[in-house]
Order: sequence, then structure tokens, then C-alpha cells
Amino acid sequence: MRMVDLIEKKKLAGVHDAAELRFIIEGYTAGAIPDYQMAAWLMAVRFRSLNRQETVELTLAMAESGRQLDLSQIAGTKVDKHSTGGVADTTTLIVTPLVAAAGVKVAKMSGRGLGFTGGTIDKLESIPGFRSALTTDEFICQVQRIGLAITSQTPDIAPADGKIYALRDVTATVDSLPLIAASVMSKKIAAGADKILLDVKYGSGAFMKTLPEAEALARVMVDIGNGAGRETLAMLSSMEEPLGTGIGNSLEIAEAIEILSGSGDPRLCEFCIEMAAQMLRMAQPDLSQPAATETIRQLLTSGAALAKFREFIEAQGGDGSVVTDPGLLGTAANCLEILSNQAGFVCSMQSAELGRGSILLGAGREKKGDPIDLHAGIKLHVRCGDAVASGQRLATLYYGKGVDPRQAKTLVLDSIQLSEQPQPCPALIAGIIAKEQSGAT
Amino acid sequence: MRMVDLIEKKKLAGVHDAAELRFIIEGYTAGAIPDYQMAAWLMAVRFRSLNRQETVELTLAMAESGRQLDLSQIAGTKVDKHSTGGVADTTTLIVTPLVAAAGVKVAKMSGRGLGFTGGTIDKLESIPGFRSALTTDEFICQVQRIGLAITSQTPDIAPADGKIYALRDVTATVDSLPLIAASVMSKKIAAGADKILLDVKYGSGAFMKTLPEAEALARVMVDIGNGAGRETLAMLSSMEEPLGTGIGNSLEIAEAIEILSGSGDPRLCEFCIEMAAQMLRMAQPDLSQPAATETIRQLLTSGAALAKFREFIEAQGGDGSVVTDPGLLGTAANCLEILSNQAGFVCSMQSAELGRGSILLGAGREKKGDPIDLHAGIKLHVRCGDAVASGQRLATLYYGKGVDPRQAKTLVLDSIQLSEQPQPCPALIAGIIAKEQSGAT
Repeated sequence: MRMVDLIEKKKLAGVHDAAELRFIIEGYTAGAIPDYQMAAWLMAVRFRSLNRQETVELTLAMAESGRQLDLSQIAGTKVDKHSTGGVADTTTLIVTPLVAAAGVKVAKMSGRGLGFTGGTIDKLESIPGFRSALTTDEFICQVQRIGLAITSQTPDIAPADGKIYALRDVTATVDSLPLIAASVMSKKIAAGADKILLDVKYGSGAFMKTLPEAEALARVMVDIGNGAGRETLAMLSSMEEPLGTGIGNSLEIAEAIEILSGSGDPRLCEFCIEMAAQMLRMAQPDLSQPAATETIRQLLTSGAALAKFREFIEAQGGDGSVVTDPGLLGTAANCLEILSNQAGFVCSMQSAELGRGSILLGAGREKKGDPIDLHAGIKLHVRCGDAVASGQRLATLYYGKGVDPRQAKTLVLDSIQLSEQPQPCPALIAGIIAKEQSGAT
Repeated sequence: MRMVDLIEKKKLAGVHDAAELRFIIEGYTAGAIPDYQMAAWLMAVRFRSLNRQETVELTLAMAESGRQLDLSQIAGTKVDKHSTGGVADTTTLIVTPLVAAAGVKVAKMSGRGLGFTGGTIDKLESIPGFRSALTTDEFICQVQRIGLAITSQTPDIAPADGKIYALRDVTATVDSLPLIAASVMSKKIAAGADKILLDVKYGSGAFMKTLPEAEALARVMVDIGNGAGRETLAMLSSMEEPLGTGIGNSLEIAEAIEILSGSGDPRLCEFCIEMAAQMLRMAQPDLSQPAATETIRQLLTSGAALAKFREFIEAQGGDGSVVTDPGLLGTAANCLEILSNQAGFVCSMQSAELGRGSILLGAGREKKGDPIDLHAGIKLHVRCGDAVASGQRLATLYYGKGVDPRQAKTLVLDSIQLSEQPQPCPALIAGIIAKEQSGAT
């Protein structure tokens, strides 16, 4: 088999078989196929796409390109979750202790933030003492013992994906649905969970700008997961406005604690209850939807979920008392209140711009490896649909010494748009994509 | 300017300006743009193509990527010719002394054979003593003195083309009309001639399999040449059957001498007269077509063209007496006659297969740098339309010691197909493509 012939085949809209895709992925991971041939093939895929079967085979080959976690020692159903990335998306921090408190086993690998989207590992590292890099033994033992562990993803999980992603980034081949889907799903499959709940975002603050695009991506990922023998569901949710009210690492930990304590933003809270109920039903398929939701609500109001979060933090070396005293997370050197210069109703909050504002304040990275300020960010005081008086506080900016907040202030003011009359707010959850019935293609 | 943005632009069917194409070519030639980005861009070009203006700008940038010959010291109009490559294509060897004898200045750079197509430099090297690598001074002085010089192309002429061609070859991006056209024309433009006559082949033995494809390529190349300020014409000619009757280096020199001596294959002879007349009219636009043709015929029958060929050979150190005694070219160690096993009329001669047969006998290269046997090859004794008796000689194979001719024999027998009734032979020249009238796009 020669790579140039496989590029030619895809260029002419041919369909690869499993052996060809395995040849490509194994050859590229091992360095036998050079970057320039892979780049040409990726561009051909960008134009010709991959069919369902090709996408599944590509994903499996990528998942098998490195270490694959064996979670079989852990009793019970292991459920993973993945969000396609957004702004103020604190769900992992809230949902995983909730479902762990309900008895679901969560062995989760997470990433760091890049661009305007945050990363769970960065957020957790704002907790004093928290250790995000566990050994495999520590990781598995902790899930066995308390039902929840979150560790940073290591480069030996789906190394083909890391190498391909870096190449796509510099060859303008990111925007290919099967390649995006294979990238996410190869890591999830290698991470070993039995079932996977996806949260596919759409809107200004998401990678997919429209609901139909998000639905198409969700469909491909659900196909891959189920095709690989892992039951997979996808929620479609709006990222037109930030999901929560805290944008920035310690701000988001504080918001998660608030929700787990039974208060906080009701929109974020309801979203997390819905997601946790879905995960619980994946682990316990006999449970009805209302019963699952009721179980999750009780774990929230009883304080069991907050206790699980504390147990989890302490298991990974963190200071568990932050859950009762979030002030221990520390605070930024400076803050600046942003006041509305007019009255009206909030009709739009541009998530991506608010995410970029938090990067300007030091909370995020432009590129991999950039240092970040764990206390920097933006706290929003209004949500879409809220009535606002002139001079009312819209947001607070947090930033360190030497940071000039003026550009972020302008971004935030421009991002929060007011109208004279209240506008309808779109539903946060637009739908759920499950495996298609047999016979569908 | 960032290469990733330019790949993205072309991927989305954007149109590059001259500065962008120059950035790409200069960056790639200098090594600032890596192979993988170039490969992705080439594949995007393969799918999105380049418009006329982009193709001209790309070609100029490639022509200017290395040394550009300045032929201004040579008085008179310098006319170059280029064939897109075929089998038994001896035209350069016949046409250039013909037009030089008519006073046209020919300063030509030629290449070596690759795959089933031969190369003029290899053919000339079968003349004892011939020196194919001239310095620039030698090259220009010789054209000034005798009107004709042919030298091997050096890597410093359009180096971007060499680098891009090597990358296209391994990334399945060869089949792009603007890239093919830019590759040919960048070298022709850098080689400095005022006017360029192209011979674009179509058919089984050519890169372009059909006349419409050849016409499209010719149109793009004529556009580029004229767009770059070099008057350019293209002839469209059939490569369904080999152009001449000799396939192999010294066999083709011998055939050229035969034609220049006023005998030989009439089809090849008429083709060369037509091509030489076109070149003469490009140098002397006031000449009518009949007058140009008549001039060329006289130079052939008078022996002036043969004398010019001898002068040219001797100027480059070769043994000029080969033109009166072709036996001095030497001969292969072995020969084998191929006889027809049936009677009929020759209805098809597969050029590419005959070219491959000559490679098997040692006359050509599978890949760059392979050694070749200058005396090996195939001499054809029949042409399309000829009546053939059973047992009649179809061809003679020439080959060196240790070469097994059986596979070549089978190829040759399979390539020459007979029918019961005579079939019409297609015209050799299908048309001439000139610059479009202003206003055309």
C-alpha cells in the first residue's frame, strides 16, 4: 500500500476500507508517512468527506494509536461526558459529583483551555493543592473508592489525534465534520468509558455556529460512539450566551460550588440537572426520566453532591474546605465594575467576545503553553432577557497587577446588547440525538 | 501574511492576488513555508483551480524563483519550442536545425527522458563526444555564432518548479491544469526566449488522453505565455501512434538525420515542416504561411538543414560525421525481429505501451537517475493504415547483453493491432491555439 495512491483515491471520491485507514493512521503516528502526504490527504478529506463507516474506522484506528485505558476493574457502568467547548461552561464540575453521588462511576480525562473556551483542568488547578495529573493506578483506585476522578489527558492517549490536530491547525483542514468528530471520539474511546454523553454547543460562542451544523456533528459523533460499541447520546445546547455567569478559572469553581450548594444561576442549574439525569439514565436504563431528574434534585438539595465534590477535591490533594469557604480560592489583585450606560432589556450576550475579554484579562491562552492567571476573568451580573437600568452593574472584571482592563471593558460593553422591548430567549437545550433505529443510514 | 490563511482562502474558493502567490512561491522556495502547508495548498488548488490571472502570476513567481536567462545580447528573435512529451518525438532534433538554417535564433534548454517519454538531452548524448552541459556564456555565444544551442536544464532555472513538482508527485496533486501549465511555462519563461511554440500532445501516449483536455491545457499555457509578454502559440497533435518510427536514443538521432537528409517517414517529415514553418512565422510575422512552408522545404531539400545540424553537433564537441554515416552512432549488442502472426491493416499502435517496451529494453528510466542504454529501443516498420501480410516484419527490438526481450516482444505485439478492413487514420495535427482576441476571458 502506498500513501500517494490513498491520497489519489480520496481525491477522486473513493471510499477507504478499514485496512487503508489503519495504514494511514499507523503510518502517520509512527512517522513513516510524512506530514506533507498527510496534509494532502486531510485536504482531500475536507473536500470529499468520509462516509459513516470510514469515520468509525478512522476513529478506532486513532483510538488504538496509543494507550487505551482498561476500566474493567471498576465495578458498575462507567459514564463519560464531553462538551464541544464554550464559555462559562462549568458543567463538568457540577455534573460529575452529582452523578457520582447517585452511584455512577465517572473516570474522566479533561483538557486545558485554548482560545476563548475554558478547560476543566485549569479550573480545578485554581483549588489550592489540587493535583490534576494522576497515575493510571491512582485514577482507577480513586474511581473505585469514591466514584469520581478527573485527570489531565496524557499525550499517550490517542497520540494520532494530537499529531493530526496540530497538522490540521496549520493546514486549514480543521473544518471537516468527520475529522472533528473523529478527534473528539478517538480520545473518549481510548479513555475507556462504557457510555458517553456529549454536549454539542452551537451559537456565537461555539465552534459550530448554527443548530443544523451542531446537529450534523452530533449525529456523526453518536454514530461513531455507537459504531464503536459505546452507547452515545448527544445534547444540543445553545452557546449564544455564556452558559454560566463566571468566566475564568477560580470564578467558575466558585460558581460550581454555588450551584452544588443549591443556589446560583437557575439556568445553569437546570441545565446541569438535565445533563446529570441523562447520565444517570445511561447508567441505569430502567430509571424513568422523571425519576432520574428527581434523584438528581434530591442529591443537590440534600448536600450529597457538594459532599461528593469535597471528597473528590480532597482525594486529589486539594483543600476541600473551599466548598464551604470559596474565599479560600483567592481573588485577583484588581477588579472593575462595568455599568450600563443605558436602560433596556438584555437581548444578546456574545459568548465568544466575552471569552476573548477574559483572555485579555489573563484568564486564558492564545496558544498552547501560555501562562494564565487563575483568578482573572469576568463575573456577569445580568442574563439574556433581564431588565437593566442605566448605571446598573452588568459585570465585574478581575485582573492582575500590570493588566490594562480597558480593551476588555470595551469588549464586554459591546458584547452585552440591550433592546427597548424584552426579546424572547431561545431554549438552552435544543434537542437530544440518540442512535438511529436500525435500517437508517 | 500567513500561509495557513492563504490555504484557507483557496479552500473557500477565494482568488489570490499577485502578492499572495509571490509570498507562497518565494516562501516555499526559501524553505520558510514547509512542505505540509504547500501540500495542503496544492490539494486546495486541485479542487478549486486558479483563474487565468492567478495562473499567470503563479507562473511568473515560479519563473523568477531562480536564475533567468538574459538573451538580449543575441540579435534577432529568439524562438523556443516545447513538447508536452510523447513517444518517438524527434521534432526538436529536426525542427531546431531547420529554423536555425532559416535564420531563427534558437537557445533551447531540454530535459532527460522519464517514464515512457524520451528526452532530447539523452538522445543527443548518443552522439559520440556530444557535450550537453554548456555554461551560460558558451550557450549564448554559440547561438550568436551559429543560431542554435541546446543545453541541459540546470536546477537553478525555476527552482520553485522542481521543488513543487517533486511534492506534487508524492501528494497526488499532479492532475491540475493550472499547475501543469505553470510548471512548463515557468521554465520556458525563465529560459529567456521571446516567443514560444508549444506542441501539446493528446492520446494514449500523452499525458492528456483526449483532445478537449489537451486543448484546455494548451489554452491555459497560451494565456500564460502571452500574459507574461511572450508571444505563445500551441499546436495540438495526436500521440495515438508514435510520432516517428524510432523509439530509443540513438535510433531517434538516426531518424532525425534521415529526415534532415530528405528521406524518412513522410508523416514525421510533414509534421516537422509544419512546426518549423510556424516557428519561422513567429520570428518573421510578415511571412505568409505558404512562403514559410516553402522556405522550410527548400532548406530540407538543399541539405542546408542537415549542414546546420552537423555544425551544431560539432559546436558542442560531437562527431559531426554521424550525419553522413549514422553507423558511427553505434548499435545495440542484440536485435530481434518481430513478425506479424496474421494479415490485415494496422488500425492502432499504442504509443504508451511501445514506450514502455523500449524502457524494458533499457532505453528509458522508471525513475530519475536510472542508467540507460543509449542504443536500446524499438524501430517500427509499419504505421497506422499500412497493409500487413502474415509473417511480415512489424518492428525490430534492440537491446544489450543480459537483457531478456520477451516481455517487450509481447508488449509490442499487443500494441500493434490489425483489422480486416483499413481504418481511417486521424489527422496528426488537430489545430492551433493562438492568443484570444481582446475582450475574451
